[in-house]
Amino acid sequence: MNVKENIKTIIVKKPLKLDCGKTINNYHLAYETYGTLNEKKDNAILVFHALSGDQFVSGTNPMTNKSGWWSYAVGPDKAINTNKFFVICANVIGGCMGSYGPNSIDPITNKTVGTNFPVITINDMVNAQYNLLEFFKIDKLFSVTGGSMGGMQVLQFVANFPDRTKTAIPIASTASHSAQNIALNELGRQAIMADSNWNNGNYFDTGSSPNNGLAVARMAAHITYLSKKSLEDKFGRKLQERDDLKFSFDADFQIESYLRHQGNAFVDRFDANSYLYITRAMDYFDLVKQYKGNLSDAFKGIKVKFFIISFTSDWLYPTPENKEIVIALNAAGADVGFIEISSDKGHDSFLLDVPDFLKSVKNFTEANY
Amino acid sequence: MNVKENIKTIIVKKPLKLDCGKTINNYHLAYETYGTLNEKKDNAILVFHALSGDQFVSGTNPMTNKSGWWSYAVGPDKAINTNKFFVICANVIGGCMGSYGPNSIDPITNKTVGTNFPVITINDMVNAQYNLLEFFKIDKLFSVTGGSMGGMQVLQFVANFPDRTKTAIPIASTASHSAQNIALNELGRQAIMADSNWNNGNYFDTGSSPNNGLAVARMAAHITYLSKKSLEDKFGRKLQERDDLKFSFDADFQIESYLRHQGNAFVDRFDANSYLYITRAMDYFDLVKQYKGNLSDAFKGIKVKFFIISFTSDWLYPTPENKEIVIALNAAGADVGFIEISSDKGHDSFLLDVPDFLKSVKNFTEANY
Repeated sequence: MNVKENIKTIIVKKPLKLDCGKTINNYHLAYETYGTLNEKKDNAILVFHALSGDQFVSGTNPMTNKSGWWSYAVGPDKAINTNKFFVICANVIGGCMGSYGPNSIDPITNKTVGTNFPVITINDMVNAQYNLLEFFKIDKLFSVTGGSMGGMQVLQFVANFPDRTKTAIPIASTASHSAQNIALNELGRQAIMADSNWNNGNYFDTGSSPNNGLAVARMAAHITYLSKKSLEDKFGRKLQERDDLKFSFDADFQIESYLRHQGNAFVDRFDANSYLYITRAMDYFDLVKQYKGNLSDAFKGIKVKFFIISFTSDWLYPTPENKEIVIALNAAGADVGFIEISSDKGHDSFLLDVPDFLKSVKNFTEANY
Repeated sequence: MNVKENIKTIIVKKPLKLDCGKTINNYHLAYETYGTLNEKKDNAILVFHALSGDQFVSGTNPMTNKSGWWSYAVGPDKAINTNKFFVICANVIGGCMGSYGPNSIDPITNKTVGTNFPVITINDMVNAQYNLLEFFKIDKLFSVTGGSMGGMQVLQFVANFPDRTKTAIPIASTASHSAQNIALNELGRQAIMADSNWNNGNYFDTGSSPNNGLAVARMAAHITYLSKKSLEDKFGRKLQERDDLKFSFDADFQIESYLRHQGNAFVDRFDANSYLYITRAMDYFDLVKQYKGNLSDAFKGIKVKFFIISFTSDWLYPTPENKEIVIALNAAGADVGFIEISSDKGHDSFLLDVPDFLKSVKNFTEANY
C-alpha cells in the first residue's frame, strides 16, 4: 500500500518526550480535514480515531475506497455538521496511515522502523496531535471527540490541555483499561506474534507478512465489537449458500464466512506491528493511576463542558465504566452531561446508524456552539 | 504424550452410523469410573465432559498429574457422592485421551488419522458413549450430567434414549449453539489453521505441531470462560513482578502472563485437530432443528426428571438459553426443576468451588435416588 499519495502530513519539528523516556522529533503526522475553519477559528472539532481507524473520518477513504469510519456521524448536516464545523483528524503515532509508526522508513538507516519503534501511550498520541492546533493556529477547539480509544484520547487531551477546548465528547470509552480488555488485546497480540511470518516484527524485507495472525486478531476483536444479540439477529445459525451442513471445516455458517472476510479485508489496510503498538497503548491507559488513584484530579477546575455517551449492549466499554468518568467529573465540579443510548449493536454502535446516538451528538454540538 | 498407559478402553465392535453418513466400527472408547456399581445397578451416573475435558473427572489425572476437571463436584461425600454413586465418564470420540479421534493410529495405514477423521456431531458422541451402558450391563442410569458441551450431550442422550436414565442435569448449556459461540469457536479454529505447522492437519510426522495456534485458541476460549468481574477481581491491572510498566511486549500485566501460561499448558495435553473437531461438533449442535423447530418434541412423553442449572455471570451460555430448555420441557409436560446460581465466576462456575451450585447438585442427586 502506497501511503504517500492522498495523504496530507505535517512534520513536527518540536521534540516530543515520550512516556517511555525516549524523545522523537521531525516526525510525520498525517491528517485530514472536513468543512471549513471560520475566521474566528472557533468551529474546529478534533476527532480522535479508535484502534483500527485512521484520519479518513468521512467521505471515501482514498486508500481503501470505502466509506470513512465515521461517515454516519460526520458530514454535511450530519451529527457533526461539516457545513458548520471544521473537523480535523490525525492518524495516531504508531498507526500505519502516514503518521510516524512502525511501518515508517527510518531516514538514517533507510529501513522500515518495525519494532525499533518505541512503545507509545495514549498520552504520547495526544501530545503529538496537539501540534495540529499550532499548525492550524487554533487557540481553542470547539470540541474534542472520539469513541473507544478515541474517547481515551479525549480524556487525556482535556487532562493535558484543559484550556484548549470548549467541549469534550468521549464515547463508549473508559478512564482505565479493564483486565478483560487487556486480555482481549493480548489475545490479538499473541495471534500476531504466533505467526512465524511476524519474525519479531522484521517482516518488511522478507516478502511475507503475518497476515494470518493479523486476520485472527481482527476476527477476535470484531466479535467483541458486536453484541450477542446483534450476532444472533444478523447471522443466527444461517448457513452459507448451502442447504445443509457440509461436514467439513469450510465456512458452513454465514457468521464464519463473515469473520473470515473481516479478517482478510483488514490485512490489506493495516500493519501488524501497528496493531501491536496501538493495543499496547490502550492497555497502558490508566488515567486514574496518572492522577494517583483520584480521577477527579484530572479534571480539577476545568471549564470544559463534557458530554459522555455509552451504549446498553456495549460489553467492552460498558455503561458503568463510562459512568465512572461522569462521577469523577461531578466530583471535580465540572459541567457534565451523560446519556446511555439503547442499542443492540454493541460497542460498534458509535460507528453505525444509531439514530438516538447521532441525534444526541447533533443536539449537543449545535446547542453549545 | 503416551495415551496408552493409565487408560481404560473398550473397543466398540457394533457399527455406528455417523451423522455425516460414514460408518465407524471397532473403535476405541476410553473411560474412567469412580465409586462402585451396586448390585441393582441403579446408582450409575454418566458424566459428559466439555470441550477441553476428558474421562478423568476426579482425583489426579494420570496424564497431566493435575486434579480431574470436576474434582470439586465429584468424589467421596461431594456433590456427586462417589460413596453412593458409580460415576462413569468417557472421552468423547474426536477427543485425544484414548477414544477414537484424529490422533488415533489408523490400523490399516498405520498412520495418524489426522483430518481423515470424519466430522462428528454431539449426537455421534452420545451414540458412541451409549455403548458403555451395555458394557456395564446397566439398564437404566440414575443420572446423566455435564456442563457446557457436556450439557448438550445430556440433552441429546435424553432425546435419543429417554428410557435409559432416571434423571438428567444439564448445566450451563444450550439446545442450539448461538451465533456468538459459533463465532468464538471459529476464531479458535482459524487460530489453529493459521499456524503454518498445522499443515492441513498432517503434522504428526513432521516433528512440529501447531502449538502457537492452539495456544492462541485456548487463550481466546479462556477469556470467554471468565466474567468481566472475575477478571477484574482476580487480575485487574496488577503488574507482573515489576514495579512499573516495561514499555515492551513482554507480559507487563498479570492477566497477560496468566493467559500465556494457560495457552502453553494446554498444548501439552491437547491435540489441535481434536480442538477443530470438537468445536465443530458444538457448532453443529441444534436440537431445535433436529426436532424441526419444536424443542419440546425432543422430550415428548419422557419420564426423566430434569434439573437445569445456569449461572448469573455466564455470558457464553447465559440463563435465557438454559431457560429455553426449561420452557420446552414444561411444554412437553416433563418433570423439570431449574435454578440460576448467583456467581461472579462466569461460565467456569460449574468447574469451580461455587458452594450454592455444589449444594444444589448434591440435594438433587440425593433427594431423587
